[in-house]
Formats: sequence, structure tokens, C-alpha cells
Amino acid sequence: MKIKVVKDILSANEQIAQRNRQLFDGNKVFAVNLMSSPGAGKTSLILQTIKRLKGKTRVGVVEGDISSSLDAEAISKEGVPVVQINTGGECHLDANMTSTALPSLPLADIELLLIENVGNLVCPAEFALGEHKKVLISSTPEGDDKPFKYPLMFHLVDAVLINKIDLLPYLKFDTDAFSQAIKGINKGAEIFPISCATGQGIEKWVSWLLTQMNQRQS
Amino acid sequence: MKIKVVKDILSANEQIAQRNRQLFDGNKVFAVNLMSSPGAGKTSLILQTIKRLKGKTRVGVVEGDISSSLDAEAISKEGVPVVQINTGGECHLDANMTSTALPSLPLADIELLLIENVGNLVCPAEFALGEHKKVLISSTPEGDDKPFKYPLMFHLVDAVLINKIDLLPYLKFDTDAFSQAIKGINKGAEIFPISCATGQGIEKWVSWLLTQMNQRQS
Repeated sequence: MKIKVVKDILSANEQIAQRNRQLFDGNKVFAVNLMSSPGAGKTSLILQTIKRLKGKTRVGVVEGDISSSLDAEAISKEGVPVVQINTGGECHLDANMTSTALPSLPLADIELLLIENVGNLVCPAEFALGEHKKVLISSTPEGDDKPFKYPLMFHLVDAVLINKIDLLPYLKFDTDAFSQAIKGINKGAEIFPISCATGQGIEKWVSWLLTQMNQRQS
Repeated sequence: MKIKVVKDILSANEQIAQRNRQLFDGNKVFAVNLMSSPGAGKTSLILQTIKRLKGKTRVGVVEGDISSSLDAEAISKEGVPVVQINTGGECHLDANMTSTALPSLPLADIELLLIENVGNLVCPAEFALGEHKKVLISSTPEGDDKPFKYPLMFHLVDAVLINKIDLLPYLKFDTDAFSQAIKGINKGAEIFPISCATGQGIEKWVSWLLTQMNQRQS
């Protein structure tokens, strides 16, 4: 009985996600669902990505949080359109919340839509939003055992960003072992070691992102 | 309709949590529910706590993870009784999972039971397990804005451990601002800055824990 309810929710979510995707495609918007643990660096990555793309690609942002609008405020300072979703306790975004937020964005003027999910390595993996790509930010202080503990998340994503590599000298974190663990769960995942604090590796990530976007739109 | 289902689940959980509590009290077990983001240091804290209490207090551990038994293996090396719960996708422990695990532990021989919840700042806050105290481990690399983003978790707990203070020189983290934000949400919360890597602050935490335990049992 319980499983049936969950299935119904997931399939209703899937239908709305498909409608979101049609809306994105109709407006030539490339949408990316950014997921991570709390504090792994989603907002910092969005800020870095906006800076690199300034004058090149029109970016829009959806900010998902349980409460507060701290992240949306930080992003609006960069002069890009942003809408905040407060989930009111829910531990993830879903397609319907996303759909409700989209009319607040000038989709016709946006080429790349970065959707920041709620900080959580579990629930967001189960809910499609209509995005073209799913990206996970994993940060070095979280430890290199995370792929074994949150396998669904690592399995589902198109790319894993290893953030906070500037802290590597002060941590026990084996980047090779971590990358191998990811590849064991998800052979096709792209892996980008980055530091949002120093900017290291951001260029490669942005270049990959633009390639994905251009492949989609051509 | 959806809200009703959630309420029913929560109230069924509450009933089982009360039965767990009776079992703990009947066996003079002091139970602590340890919660945090992924990789904030729950297992490291348990290992540090076991080491400090060796020969003084008989400790037992319940390990909650979505999958894998890495943490339980690390803890069993310390020679304390440990049982692993794999939630099979669920993003939190609940009272029933805990209840199912308890017969695997020699409760009559345990004075302090440390229950490591799934790494998640959202869902675990909603499910009582029958514990006497709820403790949150927040780590400095996650950033000092977390109380605003996960208010329910910070509101509910009896103590907040600020872990990884050894990394403070390399981070933008304002310990005073963080502590004030916690106090704004939860006046009575005890706050302990610690480092599981260096051992700093662990003594104070263990001393508080023993005081709580002794007050309960006297």
C-alpha cells in the first residue's frame, strides 16, 4: 500500500517533469539540476558559473531551500533573473514546485537555467524536475566514502564536481579512490575536481556545460 | 489527504518511539540520536567518544545508512556492540527500524547507546526514535548559514557540535555568528566546538554527555 502511494507520486511527478521539459525546449532553455549535501558549494558554483559566462550566455537561476532566501539574494546581486522556491519542510524540489516557479522567470531570455536543489544526498535523486542534466557537487571534507553511502545519487548524475580541492592538504581524501568509486557506480559520469574558493577547475566545468548545451540546441 | 497520511505515519512512529524509550529505561540505557549532513563527522565522533569512555562507560552503537556497512565495520574494531540498519533508500531512521535493530544488541550490558542517523539535515528531525537526547553535528566547511536553512533540525536538538574546527584557518566561517544563529532558533542548545581530527573539545562534549546520562539515571 505504502509503495503504491510512492509510485503514484513519482509517476505524477514524471508527467509534470515532462511538461517542464517541453516548456524548456520550447524556449530553448538548457536546464541543469544541481544537487549536493548541505554546504557542499551549490550557490558558490552558481556564482562562479555566472561570472565565467557573463556576456556569453544568458543564465537564469531557480533556488530551492526549505526556508530563507539567502541564496537567491546573493545571486540576484549578479544581475541574473532568479526565483526562490521555499519547500516549507520538504527535503527536495519536485516537478510541480519547479513548474510553479517558472512563470516568474523570463524563459525566452534565458539560455541556461541552473536549478539549485535542497541540500540533501537522498530525496532529490528521486524527483525529476524536467532538467536536461543532473549534476552532483561533492566536497572533499565530506569524505571519499560517499559513493558507497548514497549510491542512487551517484548513479543518476551526468557529472560529479569534486569541490573544495583547495582543502586537500588538510584532509584525508583520496581523489583517485573517490573517482574510481564513482566510476564503479556510474561509468559515464564526468568528474571535475574544482575549487569555488580559488576558481581552480571551473573553466573545464563551464566548457563541458557549454558543450552539452550546444549539442542539445543544434 | 496527503497531510493526513503523514500525520498517521508520525503518530504511529511516536507510539513505537515510546515503546523503544521504555525498553531503554528498563535496561538503564541512555540513548542519543546523532544527526548531521553527510560527512560532517558522526562516525568519527562516535569513535572518539568510545575511546574516551573506554573502561568507564559501556557503549553500544546503532549505525543507520541507506546502504553499506562501512561505519559499523569501523566501530566494531573498537570492540563495542554495534548493529547496522540499512534503510534501503529511506532518508532517515524511524522508530520501527530502531525497534527492529534493538534485539541484536545486549541492552542489559549497555549504558550509553549512540544511534547514528542517516546523513541528512531534513528528514531525521521529524522522526523520534525513543532517544533521550538529540545531538546535531555541524561541520565548519558546510558554512555558517546552516541554521537559517535547516531551522527545524537546529530547533529540535539538545546540543550542537561544531566539528572540524581544525579547518577554521582555511575557511570563511564565523563561529560567533553561527552560535548566535543557533541561539536565536534554540535558546537552550548546548554548543561544543570540536575537532574529531585533533581531539580538541572532545573532553567537554564527553563530560556533558556523562552528566546528562547520570542525571537521567539518578
